[in-house]
Amino acid sequence: MTKLSGFPEFLPAERNVGLVVLDHLRSVFGLHGFASIETRAVEPMDTLLRKGEIDKEVYTIRRLHAADGDGGGDRGDVLALHFDLTVPFARYVVENAGKLDFPFRRYQIQKVWRGERPQQGRFREFVQADIDIVAKDELPIHFDVEIAQVMAEALAGLPVPPLTLQVSNRKILEGFYLGLGITEPTAVMPIVDKLDKVPADKIALLLQSDAGLTAAQAASCLALAGISAADDSFVAAVRALGVTHPLLDEGLEELRRVVVGAAGADGVEVVADLRIARGLDYYTGTVFETRMARYEHLGSICSGGRYDQLASDGKATYPGVGISLGVSRLLVPLIADGLTADRSVPSAVLVALIDEDTRPASVAVAVALRARGIPTEVAASAQKYGKQIRNAERRGIPFVWFPAPLDSEDEHQVKDIRSGDQADADPATWAPAATDLKPRILTPPAKEQNT
Amino acid sequence: MTKLSGFPEFLPAERNVGLVVLDHLRSVFGLHGFASIETRAVEPMDTLLRKGEIDKEVYTIRRLHAADGDGGGDRGDVLALHFDLTVPFARYVVENAGKLDFPFRRYQIQKVWRGERPQQGRFREFVQADIDIVAKDELPIHFDVEIAQVMAEALAGLPVPPLTLQVSNRKILEGFYLGLGITEPTAVMPIVDKLDKVPADKIALLLQSDAGLTAAQAASCLALAGISAADDSFVAAVRALGVTHPLLDEGLEELRRVVVGAAGADGVEVVADLRIARGLDYYTGTVFETRMARYEHLGSICSGGRYDQLASDGKATYPGVGISLGVSRLLVPLIADGLTADRSVPSAVLVALIDEDTRPASVAVAVALRARGIPTEVAASAQKYGKQIRNAERRGIPFVWFPAPLDSEDEHQVKDIRSGDQADADPATWAPAATDLKPRILTPPAKEQNT
Repeated sequence: MTKLSGFPEFLPAERNVGLVVLDHLRSVFGLHGFASIETRAVEPMDTLLRKGEIDKEVYTIRRLHAADGDGGGDRGDVLALHFDLTVPFARYVVENAGKLDFPFRRYQIQKVWRGERPQQGRFREFVQADIDIVAKDELPIHFDVEIAQVMAEALAGLPVPPLTLQVSNRKILEGFYLGLGITEPTAVMPIVDKLDKVPADKIALLLQSDAGLTAAQAASCLALAGISAADDSFVAAVRALGVTHPLLDEGLEELRRVVVGAAGADGVEVVADLRIARGLDYYTGTVFETRMARYEHLGSICSGGRYDQLASDGKATYPGVGISLGVSRLLVPLIADGLTADRSVPSAVLVALIDEDTRPASVAVAVALRARGIPTEVAASAQKYGKQIRNAERRGIPFVWFPAPLDSEDEHQVKDIRSGDQADADPATWAPAATDLKPRILTPPAKEQNT
Repeated sequence: MTKLSGFPEFLPAERNVGLVVLDHLRSVFGLHGFASIETRAVEPMDTLLRKGEIDKEVYTIRRLHAADGDGGGDRGDVLALHFDLTVPFARYVVENAGKLDFPFRRYQIQKVWRGERPQQGRFREFVQADIDIVAKDELPIHFDVEIAQVMAEALAGLPVPPLTLQVSNRKILEGFYLGLGITEPTAVMPIVDKLDKVPADKIALLLQSDAGLTAAQAASCLALAGISAADDSFVAAVRALGVTHPLLDEGLEELRRVVVGAAGADGVEVVADLRIARGLDYYTGTVFETRMARYEHLGSICSGGRYDQLASDGKATYPGVGISLGVSRLLVPLIADGLTADRSVPSAVLVALIDEDTRPASVAVAVALRARGIPTEVAASAQKYGKQIRNAERRGIPFVWFPAPLDSEDEHQVKDIRSGDQADADPATWAPAATDLKPRILTPPAKEQNT
């Protein structure tokens, strides 16, 4: 599908899948009052480096002939492509704080770049769709619920295998660890976060060797990480472990509200899962990850959380909560497995051409149909009708229109080339079914079997 | 508007202008059967350099820690950001030729980057919207007509000052120059193309000093460049100059068809203008430029033409015709002059909050409205109603919804905060006017005066 590893491109029918998905996301985000913004693709290195560890994955840019020193100066002047949409958004919020109304809901759908080694679900250029809500000074927990609800609703409308939105809360983990007498809880989280890839008994040993835990403490941490539930029963399960701490109580209540509040979107299960910690990230409360059935090897396809400290301008702090859908991580593997659209063009109708002299008559039909919102093209050349029909068929265009010959008593006719049905039609009134107006997604057989 | 010169960003209300424009462009292009594609932002240097002279404006990219040699190899391995959408599209066509159906109509709306010195209408990061039609081996002239028609229709729907789509044809210029006895017509075009910036008498001297023309030849070239007309009268005007050549005849007939065929889009005048030559570009026939009234200093905001030789894979040639709209070049100056939207959010309704305990009741109203496609948000906090209304007003949200208090006989009520009208309403049936569903563009006073 691509000749430059890690930079996926799509053929037109595959691209139509992406358009359907992006239109759906924009529609759901907009219905919930999230404003669209775009940030420039480029940030100064020092803005990007605030986050720290991602350093090595950044692509810097410079002018090929930077004779005037542009791009060749010290590190403060170096520009780089953004590697996510959260860091640029935080910069945008602080830069425009005086002109924005808080709480500020925004969505942002853009390409980002990382110089990682390409592999399944990991690209060097990819599209992310982020929603965030940022407030000034204080952001109540109902916004965490809202973020989960909106993304669950967005995910539920996608043509993909079943999804599980896993929610946890850093305060639970930190409070629990503190309650256990662990003095450095932040050393524990990155180790527990590896439970995906490393067996539990190994994690127990790492917790002792690298984070200085006792065997009993390590066992308790693993017991906590083992708790998951699709309802608020996780609260009792945590209590049963016998650990108490005020921060733990706070986290349990926050997580309860998110899990209960976001439940109920068709095709997306929302679960409390205390294994989720989000490694070294900047989250301070709620954290999200998302797994896709049969594509668990992709890791989380939609992640985020609450960050109380990400954006600050010295005078004010802008706490936020958000979640980022990896559109490319989700779609590229599904498309490689056969997810596609029923057509490679937007056209619902191909107007046939009798001969080159009567092209204006065919164009007039197309103009009449387009005026009523029906995507229409006129045949490229006056081949035999059989060839014109096959040309439409090859591209998935459902209807071929045969203009009435000039000076004849005949009516216009339109043929549904899927059924073969052909009937008289008037360019001023005829319309296809609403479902034929736009490209439709064709799910591959695997999806039909399992869902 | 931006803190990094040449990288424009928008506030949410301004961004809504961009969204309206992009949705309109996508809609028109799709109605005409143009398929959407996106190419990666990055190309190998040797793909970009095929075009030649743009070399100095390219941004190269490299991984910050390219220890494995990635990005640090010889020039063939160097990656750069694309500087237009035509060169990547030509690469895409050749790479996927076996999987595409020709003639292939596509639109492509993406950011591009150029390391130019930023100035009015010139940016380092900007958005272009391109349409092209590419065929295999042969592309009849009616596709040039189609490209002009589609872009004229797209431009006609934009909230901008009046536009003039200027069309010329390289064959006219080349045939005319050959008919005059000039042996190197390609030396003449770049000089005539400077008529924008350099006075005609200087151009006449340059044609003699730099292109070796006689004073009479130079005068004839300038006479040709002086011809423009909104109909096919330009043909007679050219004939009256007394020059004959078969290529001139061919070009005149092609241009006549484009100008006559594309006329008639409201708010966009299509004119034959023989001053247009498109400098050093790769065009072989039709050429397009576009001027905007009162913003002539921006230069052409929408340019393109016929390129018979751009894409080739050795076995086949893929002639094309296309035109590229500079979306940023168009919008950034207009927005700086006051073009904006009536709201900074997509929300049409703000559901007020009685108190935090009844948030679920307010959320239920929002859910009911969204289910019928009405963008709705719930108030962030239970401030006094006056404050909640002012919050909606500040962001341009036209309606505030007051939920019926629980255990009361009262109805829900909705207030149009522009008129002050307030009335009972049912969340299951109430709807705003269709024009209130989406952000509307507010044109600045200058536009209203002059158009």
